[in-house]
Amino acid sequence: MTHPRKPARRPNKILGGLDAAIDACGLRDGAVVSFHHHLRNGDGVLNAVMAAIARRGLKDVTVAASSLFAVHAPLVRHIEEGTVGGVSAGFIAGPVAEAISRGLLARPARLLTHGGRARAIAAGELVIDAAFVAAPAADPFGNLNGVDGPSACGALGYPQVDAAHAKRVVAVTDHLVPYPACPIAIGQECVDFVVVLASIGEAAGIVSGTTRPTGEAAGLAIAALAARVIEAAGLLADGFSFQTGAGGISLAAAAEVRRRMQALGVVGSFASGGITGQHVAMLEEGLFRTLLDVQCFDLEAVRSFARDPRHLAMSAARYAAPGPRGAVVDALDAVILGATEIDRDFNVNVTTGSDGVLMGGSGGHADTAAGAGLAIVTSRLTAGANPKLVERVRTLTTPGATVDVVVTEAGLAVNPARGELRARLREAGLPVLGIDELLARAAAAADRPASPRAEGRTVAEVEYRDGSVIDTIPQARPQAR
Amino acid sequence: MTHPRKPARRPNKILGGLDAAIDACGLRDGAVVSFHHHLRNGDGVLNAVMAAIARRGLKDVTVAASSLFAVHAPLVRHIEEGTVGGVSAGFIAGPVAEAISRGLLARPARLLTHGGRARAIAAGELVIDAAFVAAPAADPFGNLNGVDGPSACGALGYPQVDAAHAKRVVAVTDHLVPYPACPIAIGQECVDFVVVLASIGEAAGIVSGTTRPTGEAAGLAIAALAARVIEAAGLLADGFSFQTGAGGISLAAAAEVRRRMQALGVVGSFASGGITGQHVAMLEEGLFRTLLDVQCFDLEAVRSFARDPRHLAMSAARYAAPGPRGAVVDALDAVILGATEIDRDFNVNVTTGSDGVLMGGSGGHADTAAGAGLAIVTSRLTAGANPKLVERVRTLTTPGATVDVVVTEAGLAVNPARGELRARLREAGLPVLGIDELLARAAAAADRPASPRAEGRTVAEVEYRDGSVIDTIPQARPQAR
Repeated sequence: MTHPRKPARRPNKILGGLDAAIDACGLRDGAVVSFHHHLRNGDGVLNAVMAAIARRGLKDVTVAASSLFAVHAPLVRHIEEGTVGGVSAGFIAGPVAEAISRGLLARPARLLTHGGRARAIAAGELVIDAAFVAAPAADPFGNLNGVDGPSACGALGYPQVDAAHAKRVVAVTDHLVPYPACPIAIGQECVDFVVVLASIGEAAGIVSGTTRPTGEAAGLAIAALAARVIEAAGLLADGFSFQTGAGGISLAAAAEVRRRMQALGVVGSFASGGITGQHVAMLEEGLFRTLLDVQCFDLEAVRSFARDPRHLAMSAARYAAPGPRGAVVDALDAVILGATEIDRDFNVNVTTGSDGVLMGGSGGHADTAAGAGLAIVTSRLTAGANPKLVERVRTLTTPGATVDVVVTEAGLAVNPARGELRARLREAGLPVLGIDELLARAAAAADRPASPRAEGRTVAEVEYRDGSVIDTIPQARPQAR
Repeated sequence: MTHPRKPARRPNKILGGLDAAIDACGLRDGAVVSFHHHLRNGDGVLNAVMAAIARRGLKDVTVAASSLFAVHAPLVRHIEEGTVGGVSAGFIAGPVAEAISRGLLARPARLLTHGGRARAIAAGELVIDAAFVAAPAADPFGNLNGVDGPSACGALGYPQVDAAHAKRVVAVTDHLVPYPACPIAIGQECVDFVVVLASIGEAAGIVSGTTRPTGEAAGLAIAALAARVIEAAGLLADGFSFQTGAGGISLAAAAEVRRRMQALGVVGSFASGGITGQHVAMLEEGLFRTLLDVQCFDLEAVRSFARDPRHLAMSAARYAAPGPRGAVVDALDAVILGATEIDRDFNVNVTTGSDGVLMGGSGGHADTAAGAGLAIVTSRLTAGANPKLVERVRTLTTPGATVDVVVTEAGLAVNPARGELRARLREAGLPVLGIDELLARAAAAADRPASPRAEGRTVAEVEYRDGSVIDTIPQARPQAR
């Protein structure tokens, strides 16, 4: 018989700082470290951790983030100095995106979908040595939540996946609470260490400028037409489920859908994805029974998430991971998405700009398009002088086979595979054009033709949600900058 | 470029019945199937599933349950007929326990602790082919909770571990709700199939008779002394955390602790484990800030769990799994536990009766003793004619190294390793005797000496929370029955 000794009491996981955490995690050259983007453009954790990693002289580290924003500009220097040799993320904007396009990274960046990232982590394809979780509130054992403290951001859907699978997990907080944290979004069973910083972020940056509806006429016309498509498709009935992206047209379309649901007295089942105050209002008006929230996009959503038991959190896995068990996206009736470019095959690019420079990525775009019964992509015909409907997208983000309807200010096009839907929309008197017609109108409205796709060294790979690489991004030509 | 096809809409996971689920899970001879015990002695799911498995002619199946009760008596026939060849559980009582003691099982049963079971599942030592989750409410995609429907049982801490790791997971419900279930205790990302039965259990059996405080004088004296030990140890201060077992003396001790906390104006941090109406009252009186609930023991707890955000769920892993990240038990200030036998080395048996027959098991006993700063084991000196304090426990459930104080109606004994505690209790005027003295008094009070431990074929193995086998149980002698 063994007589185990009583273990030490209350294993306090608080370390003296990020340097100590990097040591405690045993990070070495080539390590993979992960981050989440719930603090959006106000995030202070990634920069603080990467500065510490640089101080410790590590090289060739891979940053596996759920998304990267302008605030993460200091990463460019870490790339230049060899501290960082790889980047993967669901969305990359700002100076880091530009640096990747310039060919600064040692290895091609990997662009994932939010659901694909969750799948890759769970499948062991994306192995994380240490996940650094920006924790608006945490207790000394590492139980943490997103609803308390000065950097409250609400739901924590992305790091829930990292924390469940990473070899080491570090909670980084500026709001240490007594044990136990309440509520608990990520539990102590997933957390190795706790680091307390003076601040984990800037509250002002947590609400992104992308989360306001458009006020511009063409955008409003597109939004109204998108809402009419949903209604004409017969979806505005009890049980309706809905998601929009965070772009201005999508949010205006959501406002249109809201008005129609009010008029029809429809009680939907859920709205999902990144949640805004508008979704909260729809929940409180009884237009939806629940919200399924992977990330709060504004402070009204944060407040609702903290107080309303119908406002449910979902991990990125539950939200969007592909697989036989299905995700929330597979239960979606309709999603309204944006586009940088749309092509003749209904393929969508939200990854690169018209200059071929990386400026975004799928996030949940490809996931929701694949899952939703009706995936509507909205777009103006042109952006500045450039056509947005083009012969072939510069970068494939979301395959056309998963896009059902394209809505522009000039009218809409239905995917040829959806003949019945096309007939319905025609019957409802909607302006159903062909995709060829939309391309022609875009070409006519544009001041110049779409520039040809560049050739050159691959600086980034676009990984579809199932793990397959569906496109590559060539290095941006110097003149394009 | 690949152009993935749009997947089928809304993957409905509802199967026609348990037979279809067994087929869909691909179960074969030798499969391991798991169950949880939140419906306690009212559970109808294990029996229904095992009847279906027997109908399909499977042989040598292992039943990996969190606990087994008298209601699971039909399992005896499945063992006799070879359908079931192995059993593992944290606690086994009733006809199945007796059958195991008689040597009916092909392989020795495996007795786990609740935390050790979670550890073994997560570590891949206990590989579950199919987990059958009794789900008081579930939606067609398999999101499920324990708070809605006619069989509402509250928290679902045990199956959360099974569902996270089993190869296939089947939600078995009698209350199908529209998508999405709200709240969600186990999400669709963990669930393969949904089966709807007319009933998953008998509400009356969900509340076990073990969850009422003792009213008997010696028991009340023991309870009062246990509470005085906690106070004298200096633990009744703000932040105090506490757990009791579900035995009558433990519950009476909790009532004593409650009165002392009220008198002192102490605000504790949490009460944990199986939660009763008494814990709920203490939460509502402000005596604890939170409850950490792995399983609701009565209907008042179920009601509180459904409505009070301070009443938190915890999985068995968060609750009690050993490992470097620590569990809730490692944050416990004090736990009050029961005993069938206690020996000179403070070892405790709650696994077999004085006749050597299997009648229980650790559950969380060994986990909380190992974690808590002060582990108090309460016991009367005798049970019927038999001494309960003995030279050597018949079966080792909880190693004496993790037991700090033994409290009886004759006085208490402090583990020699806790000299400072012993001095404190003496100073406080508590009746501190030695363990030898307690043994002597028990022997004097008993009508007969402890019967010797039987020898013979091993019918069950006692696995400590770290996975090591710390004892074996020999086949019960025929005369003992």
